[in-house]
Amino acid sequence: MLAFVVDDSPGLKEIPTPVPEPGDALVRVRMAGICGTDHALLGGYRGFRGVPGHEMVGVVEKASDSSWVGRRVVSDINIGCGACSLCGQGLLRHCENRKVLGIEGRDGAFAEYLTTPIGNLHRVPDSVSDEEAVWVEPLAAALAVGEAGISPGERVLVVGDGRLGTLIALGLQMRGAKVEVAGKHEHKLSLLRSVGLSVVAGAARAIYPWVVEATGSPEGIEKARAWTRPKGTIILKSTSEEMSRVDASRIVVDELRLVGSRCGDFEPAIAALVEKAIPVERLVSKVYPFRDIVTALDESARREVFKVLVDFREIR
Amino acid sequence: MLAFVVDDSPGLKEIPTPVPEPGDALVRVRMAGICGTDHALLGGYRGFRGVPGHEMVGVVEKASDSSWVGRRVVSDINIGCGACSLCGQGLLRHCENRKVLGIEGRDGAFAEYLTTPIGNLHRVPDSVSDEEAVWVEPLAAALAVGEAGISPGERVLVVGDGRLGTLIALGLQMRGAKVEVAGKHEHKLSLLRSVGLSVVAGAARAIYPWVVEATGSPEGIEKARAWTRPKGTIILKSTSEEMSRVDASRIVVDELRLVGSRCGDFEPAIAALVEKAIPVERLVSKVYPFRDIVTALDESARREVFKVLVDFREIR
Repeated sequence: MLAFVVDDSPGLKEIPTPVPEPGDALVRVRMAGICGTDHALLGGYRGFRGVPGHEMVGVVEKASDSSWVGRRVVSDINIGCGACSLCGQGLLRHCENRKVLGIEGRDGAFAEYLTTPIGNLHRVPDSVSDEEAVWVEPLAAALAVGEAGISPGERVLVVGDGRLGTLIALGLQMRGAKVEVAGKHEHKLSLLRSVGLSVVAGAARAIYPWVVEATGSPEGIEKARAWTRPKGTIILKSTSEEMSRVDASRIVVDELRLVGSRCGDFEPAIAALVEKAIPVERLVSKVYPFRDIVTALDESARREVFKVLVDFREIR
Repeated sequence: MLAFVVDDSPGLKEIPTPVPEPGDALVRVRMAGICGTDHALLGGYRGFRGVPGHEMVGVVEKASDSSWVGRRVVSDINIGCGACSLCGQGLLRHCENRKVLGIEGRDGAFAEYLTTPIGNLHRVPDSVSDEEAVWVEPLAAALAVGEAGISPGERVLVVGDGRLGTLIALGLQMRGAKVEVAGKHEHKLSLLRSVGLSVVAGAARAIYPWVVEATGSPEGIEKARAWTRPKGTIILKSTSEEMSRVDASRIVVDELRLVGSRCGDFEPAIAALVEKAIPVERLVSKVYPFRDIVTALDESARREVFKVLVDFREIR
């Protein structure tokens, strides 16, 4: 099969189609999304080797449980060992031996096929298109922000006008929070306004009880802190290889809470897409055929580009 | 009156006895404790000028509400403006115009007299000695750690074997948590063992659901993080003028919570002292008469010294 492989000379290559192990499904990829993490992996993050890509929708071609065959699916990306104490507590996302599709120890979606545990599969309802379904993973991560306890009617500031910040803001708005976004890229802020989000301008004021840090930068924590009122909560979403400089004394004196938030459950994200509650298709900048994935990756790295998708359907 | 004054040449000086404003009480200090913050203020922290000292017990000499006169009291240290929106929400501890006894904008307890709002006073029961009552403020700050939601029976690691870490550990143990302390000063760890605390040795393992950072150092957050299990909570207590370097990605990936914790309510601390539930007197290294406060400050800065108190009673 054709796959985009990260190795000493990353690129599109012909590699063997994977053979599913017992308990795994073989999924033919229909569409994949490009995420900032993919660029980080290409840049050497975590020393990743293999096929990246973790936002995808596909069709099950083989599975020991034949009821899955032919179904259109998305896949949870975290794969716990199932044997350690963290897995035993249901924290398989935190299993020390975990593998993560397209991110850590397991090939991902920038290939015609991938394998994934049957237990990770979620069926995609017919009313959700491939172009929408490919958003399930990032939307689930965005909706996970709500787990910190934000109630309808509360004021939330999202710091960061990129893909993740926008999805987070739309998700919080869907759930009734009073959301504003602070960003610095005018072309992105225009897009945000066009999908119904409020944008805040000017110098930071410490007035928000909830602030989401989605800048993607190590300076994001301090930026978010400047907007957070005493006793407020900062939800951290950015991962960076660099260390952050943080004024810990202000966290103590202002009695702030910081909450790290990573992945989320897929079902609420699928439900939001069924309800057409998040205008994900309007966030797509461009769709490339899979054979042009190198161009697609270059394109998605440009500052003015929002979301780039990769389409595998024509190569069938 | 005699007071220890921080100015261009800090030292013991004769200054006018303060005159209480309407709503304030004049308190004759009986005993005061020396805290790390006092040393920070002497070193220039926040550009403090005036009389430091915020751990104290005294007797009310004058007050517009005469029922307080003659009573032995301790005083809350935060004084809100009472007019701003934060004060209106009961967050006077976070009032932007707040004053803090002996720390910010208001003279403190290293003097024969201080004034403080009557609303900040708490009566000290007869069964609590001066030597115990002087611990109310730091013990209240230590017990505030429990507000983060630690339940009886849960495992907690306190990182830091100094005064604050020890009080926190004793407070958590009193409330039924399974507490251990990680420290690096053998003489302090011996004292901790002698008051019934468990000490943990060896390299950090990420196994604790709750970790309290009480190192007093900007490196404390990362030290604490190394002991915290995924989905765990780090309670931050240290204030430092230096910025901390933090691996924010690990907070996100491990979905950690960080909670800043500062001051606490006085009544639970007074109750703990009434019940003799915290052996505070065993934590006192030495008591100096007030006229020797310069020596007392020097002594309390020595690494092997635990807590130094200053006694004003003999100068009456």
